[in-house]
Amino acid sequence: MKLALLLLATAVLAQQPPVRILIAYHSETGNTEKMAQAIRKGAASVEGVEVTLRKTADVKDQEILQADGIVVGTPVQWSNVSAETKRFLDRVGAVLWKAKTNGDGRTAGAFCTGGAVAMGKDVARLSILSALLTMRFTVIGGVDDSGFGTLGPEATTGPADPGVSDKEQEEARNFGERFAKMTRQLRTAR
Amino acid sequence: MKLALLLLATAVLAQQPPVRILIAYHSETGNTEKMAQAIRKGAASVEGVEVTLRKTADVKDQEILQADGIVVGTPVQWSNVSAETKRFLDRVGAVLWKAKTNGDGRTAGAFCTGGAVAMGKDVARLSILSALLTMRFTVIGGVDDSGFGTLGPEATTGPADPGVSDKEQEEARNFGERFAKMTRQLRTAR
Amino acid sequence: MKLALLLLATAVLAQQPPVRILIAYHSETGNTEKMAQAIRKGAASVEGVEVTLRKTADVKDQEILQADGIVVGTPVQWSNVSAETKRFLDRVGAVLWKAKTNGDGRTAGAFCTGGAVAMGKDVARLSILSALLTMRFTVIGGVDDSGFGTLGPEATTGPADPGVSDKEQEEARNFGERFAKMTRQLRTAR
Amino acid sequence: MKLALLLLATAVLAQQPPVRILIAYHSETGNTEKMAQAIRKGAASVEGVEVTLRKTADVKDQEILQADGIVVGTPVQWSNVSAETKRFLDRVGAVLWKAKTNGDGRTAGAFCTGGAVAMGKDVARLSILSALLTMRFTVIGGVDDSGFGTLGPEATTGPADPGVSDKEQEEARNFGERFAKMTRQLRTAR
Repeated sequence: MKLALLLLATAVLAQQPPVRILIAYHSETGNTEKMAQAIRKGAASVEGVEVTLRKTADVKDQEILQADGIVVGTPVQWSNVSAETKRFLDRVGAVLWKAKTNGDGRTAGAFCTGGAVAMGKDVARLSILSALLTMRFTVIGGVDDSGFGTLGPEATTGPADPGVSDKEQEEARNFGERFAKMTRQLRTAR
Repeated sequence: MKLALLLLATAVLAQQPPVRILIAYHSETGNTEKMAQAIRKGAASVEGVEVTLRKTADVKDQEILQADGIVVGTPVQWSNVSAETKRFLDRVGAVLWKAKTNGDGRTAGAFCTGGAVAMGKDVARLSILSALLTMRFTVIGGVDDSGFGTLGPEATTGPADPGVSDKEQEEARNFGERFAKMTRQLRTAR
Repeated sequence: MKLALLLLATAVLAQQPPVRILIAYHSETGNTEKMAQAIRKGAASVEGVEVTLRKTADVKDQEILQADGIVVGTPVQWSNVSAETKRFLDRVGAVLWKAKTNGDGRTAGAFCTGGAVAMGKDVARLSILSALLTMRFTVIGGVDDSGFGTLGPEATTGPADPGVSDKEQEEARNFGERFAKMTRQLRTAR
Repeated sequence: MKLALLLLATAVLAQQPPVRILIAYHSETGNTEKMAQAIRKGAASVEGVEVTLRKTADVKDQEILQADGIVVGTPVQWSNVSAETKRFLDRVGAVLWKAKTNGDGRTAGAFCTGGAVAMGKDVARLSILSALLTMRFTVIGGVDDSGFGTLGPEATTGPADPGVSDKEQEEARNFGERFAKMTRQLRTAR
């Protein structure tokens, strides 16, 4: 019986449109972009998932509306998201509002890079997640290499630990996979 | 074909164990308890869902482990959760850890009551949600009567607006229903 | 002896340049502006204090550099400061940085207006205060009419409680006075 | 004239009771204690300042009431302060309340240690600072080795970066000195 269900589920999935995930990021130095690419790799490894990777400024309205899940990445600037990232979050809200829809049944995730180890990274990611909760999205976090959940992947990029390390990219990749699987689950159940 | 699938899905659901939702709250004056009861009413209205309502001090380990979704409620005390609520969150983490499991595939929600209109209610709810994200839960917010998403239902209970109003209870009830439906979706998809 | 000191202190104060407070706000509907004006009234009532009230877009670099205290006001938009407010905070950082100075010995405050009772008001004010802490400012909160401290004055402005009430303006006025007095204390002690 | 004032100020300071700073911390593994000791060293280096270093459980009511500044340290547990730390914050509020006083003219600071680089450290420190703002304290942050302000010193203590490094202790020491100087300024100005 279980096998029959599994086969049927597979057949049903095969008929469905792909699960669409939008990864939108603001990057000035390339670090946040690197994290975004690692997340894309993870998300794209999940069957039935189609990933769109975009700089926030390049995202099209249609891409926002079609997304089953949105992941937003930002550099930490003065202990919060960048102004450009806030502008993008506002735009997501405006585009959904204009189309008379909202985040119901869709998923949201956040990631960031920051020069300092621990100044503003929580606030930046919570800012993104709060904004998307206010648009009625469901929130999915990451998992670090100790198995603890996170607010989403992050990298330290300042002089003491410059750039994005392999370990940080690996967590980003894992988050992408986790995010895509859970978004597919939620979409399937709709 | 869609009807056949629906019938099949219904048959499958009928075979499954109920979706279990644990609503755990700390209440000193009865206000947070009133909100908890409204959430329970909403959650219990969803088919296939079994709700357990408990004061944080009375929750059994087994109830934590069996829960497909956990909703935690707190009075706002000094702009954060109460110490009793923090103790409970720690206990959820410890119980899951000891059983070598975590919040994967489970949902989390938060609610609060506060004397002041807007002092500490965000921080208290974000504290609960951050803690449960760190345990790998998926986060579901509420929806207010204007259609905006929230970090979870809340009530103002101070001298200027004492007790829990009908409107506040109605948002709590709606949150319970929304939370139960989404928890069922996620569980079904597991 | 105490009287002599008091007289001396008064004489010293009389020689000093005024304590300069900059109130910078972003307002779209006029609500945040109303709060800003009430804060100005309170601050201007304190002897030895000179207040500059400006829309964020109109603030001059020199006004940022000369300020002994900066108060920033924002509408809550998607549970955080507005993008315009974030842009202004970035600018404060850039102006100080360029002048090779920082917030040491200066004070910071925050205020906000939001449609909903308690969605995003904490996050918006904490965003402002975190940003200014990152620039090394000292943070001063408000006091509500029950005598509890706050993250700064706020007003609920949505359909359920439109506009800025007299009580909300009174708290804003009180905050202005408190902020100005403490800023004067800190400046005097420099 | 300036010299005369300076001499007078020194004479006045010499007559005054010492500026009292209470450093209260919760530590399970000794890491937060190490940070507390470094902060004490910095604070004690400031003339006219008397420092009391206490585990939260050992703080006496009188020490809370006499403190011109309170610094609270916590391990990050489930992305927030520990329950023990929250209990202590509640006690500070209760002790002040019972004595019909509050944080006016007093200063507050926060520090933390966390296993992960950036999970919960902001939330834990903001929790402490929000609580003390609600009691009407003035908030003083730290400065990191790049010259940026912080929410207070922090150390990463997990497997990837165990214990408290010299650099982390140095930032803690610097914070202690900065906190003591600013607390003295504010007290002097009272």
